[in-house]
Amino acid sequence: MPKRSNSRKPVSVLFHADSGDPDMLYFSRFNAFDPYLAFSIGKKKFGVAPDSEYGRMVQESDFDELLLLSEIRKGAARRFKVPKGKFPNPCQLVRHLAKLFDIRGFRVSPRFPAGLAFELKDAGLKIEIAGSEGLFPERVVKSQEEVESLRKGNRASAAGFRVVAKTLAESKVRRGQLIHQGRVLTAERLRDLIGQAALMEGASALHTIAAPGDQAVDNHCAGHGPIRAGELIVVDIFPQRPEDGYWGDMTRTFLKGEASDDQKRLVRTVKQAHSMSLKMIKPGASGGKVHRAVADFFAKEGYETVRGGKNMKGFFHALGHGVGLQVHESPVLHAKADWRFKKGMVVTTEPGLYYRGLGGVRIEDMVHLIPGGNELISRAPYKWQID
Amino acid sequence: MPKRSNSRKPVSVLFHADSGDPDMLYFSRFNAFDPYLAFSIGKKKFGVAPDSEYGRMVQESDFDELLLLSEIRKGAARRFKVPKGKFPNPCQLVRHLAKLFDIRGFRVSPRFPAGLAFELKDAGLKIEIAGSEGLFPERVVKSQEEVESLRKGNRASAAGFRVVAKTLAESKVRRGQLIHQGRVLTAERLRDLIGQAALMEGASALHTIAAPGDQAVDNHCAGHGPIRAGELIVVDIFPQRPEDGYWGDMTRTFLKGEASDDQKRLVRTVKQAHSMSLKMIKPGASGGKVHRAVADFFAKEGYETVRGGKNMKGFFHALGHGVGLQVHESPVLHAKADWRFKKGMVVTTEPGLYYRGLGGVRIEDMVHLIPGGNELISRAPYKWQID
Repeated sequence: MPKRSNSRKPVSVLFHADSGDPDMLYFSRFNAFDPYLAFSIGKKKFGVAPDSEYGRMVQESDFDELLLLSEIRKGAARRFKVPKGKFPNPCQLVRHLAKLFDIRGFRVSPRFPAGLAFELKDAGLKIEIAGSEGLFPERVVKSQEEVESLRKGNRASAAGFRVVAKTLAESKVRRGQLIHQGRVLTAERLRDLIGQAALMEGASALHTIAAPGDQAVDNHCAGHGPIRAGELIVVDIFPQRPEDGYWGDMTRTFLKGEASDDQKRLVRTVKQAHSMSLKMIKPGASGGKVHRAVADFFAKEGYETVRGGKNMKGFFHALGHGVGLQVHESPVLHAKADWRFKKGMVVTTEPGLYYRGLGGVRIEDMVHLIPGGNELISRAPYKWQID
Repeated sequence: MPKRSNSRKPVSVLFHADSGDPDMLYFSRFNAFDPYLAFSIGKKKFGVAPDSEYGRMVQESDFDELLLLSEIRKGAARRFKVPKGKFPNPCQLVRHLAKLFDIRGFRVSPRFPAGLAFELKDAGLKIEIAGSEGLFPERVVKSQEEVESLRKGNRASAAGFRVVAKTLAESKVRRGQLIHQGRVLTAERLRDLIGQAALMEGASALHTIAAPGDQAVDNHCAGHGPIRAGELIVVDIFPQRPEDGYWGDMTRTFLKGEASDDQKRLVRTVKQAHSMSLKMIKPGASGGKVHRAVADFFAKEGYETVRGGKNMKGFFHALGHGVGLQVHESPVLHAKADWRFKKGMVVTTEPGLYYRGLGGVRIEDMVHLIPGGNELISRAPYKWQID
């Protein structure tokens, strides 16, 4: 885990969240299904452990000190004269902690629950809200350990692509439809197979996209129904590892049978944009510039882009995004991005083109910024035509 | 979906959340991985669709009207003179919407992001925060459709128990360890098999507990390492259905080989408590009273409870909880609960006893409150000794 910067004067951070909150998971490294309180004093991390979680928190979390919720509740109940038969509320618990540890105010995430924030402010505590980049902007730079976790996430994606390629190869074409193991092959069936393959690699692929034909033009459409021969199939697999919360995120495009010349040119053009972006992503380069270079290249090749509403086509999404404890996190590679790449960042590059009647192509990989360039931390073949 | 009550005067609700927020999912019925804006005017639901999500939102969401994010951004940029090359921030987008639709204030969830809430308040909008029960307290009462979704979630749990029973039956005992398909059977392997079985039923079991022996005493310990003959194994499977967001939640306890008399008595006592709770859970009954009846029964049977810290033992957790779009939601059946059961609620009942040296037993089912009693919406055998 990267060290916190020393340059910022130590302020107490405060959380009331479960581990679905990525800053909370980054701070605690603890999987919790229900919200609990955590805070810091200087560099020391405190967790308020529900009694039934205490043992697991001792073993699994990054907290330097654990306070037992039942004890904190007792103290808060005495301090605020909470009637017997009632528990103190979270605001009373935090105010009690602030008194115990002589804390005047807290720095919280912009995602901190507004209800508790307003109550604490009304009670006289200073509540400082972190900028839109969250409590730990240093999360954009990944440690080697984090890169390894992301690499493992991508291995689960790659396992999904292997099963897609195998299933398409094994499928027979009958009146344009694909038949696999005696049944019509559907997007749903592909997703099930991908989910199982990802699970065997220790990751959970909940919202895989397997979008055949025009379905890929609705960018996040999961895909449904039979898959036909000669149709482009966009397969985007982004599994999360329950063990540590890190994600894989890769996309490949497939086609069973014969591709048309237009489809071939579409795939070739996206692949060229993909290679171009890999060459441009390096420490110091502008994020916006890489996106615009790809957009300009597509336009120059004659692929028109229309954004918005029902007539969307072309290259209408961001070229890529950071990945870590969130599948989409800072930085985002869009046309207006004004930030520069830094060593240690991990981002996806995922150029894509989508046209009704022709279908969609997207090719996505994940890269880790290293001195002078980047290293791929996602690996899967680019072979897209399956006989 | 249950209708909103008419008794409350219509106020505009506001969301800036992804579908991980259960109130947002309840409101929109739309799976979104990134936060977006949504609001209501009277009973009409508005969604602000990122352009690339527009098509899917038209087809899949419950919104009555969709606004295109790119259009709202243009309007907000004009209104607030946002420099070219920048996007308006979420606060500017909401203020623009408030002007467009003549809204003076919003009602938000206590989990609404504090950063945006403070900005909107500073900009003069009235921000009213819903109570701790959230924006839609009516979520505790489930529609028939929601009950069916929960039933399907539990079918995924039941599939997990089937594979556990089968695996234990197929295992051979060698020097106290279980050998399955030539390998030492571990908690991790059981969890993998359960995950695959749940997935085949359309649900994702990410944090299954399969805790052998004393590991079950750490209430939420996932379980690790070899499983031994004669050891109690607590298996708690709570899978979520990606399709609609509803959960299953069931627990069974297993043992391969010969159980001791103390283990048999422990299982029998927990099963009696389970049956007792099923008889007591009915519309009008007090939630706290059912929990206390179980706690008293355990004490009377000589099973001591110690809460807190390293010496926890006995019955130290809540008897049960509501389930829906969250695996733990209102109401909670704990000793101090002062609410009463209502027709249409769905809760778990999960009595358990845990002692170091003896291990743990928990038996959990899910029930739907119907006139005069409840119906089980989770089904799996209670056979626990596997030869």
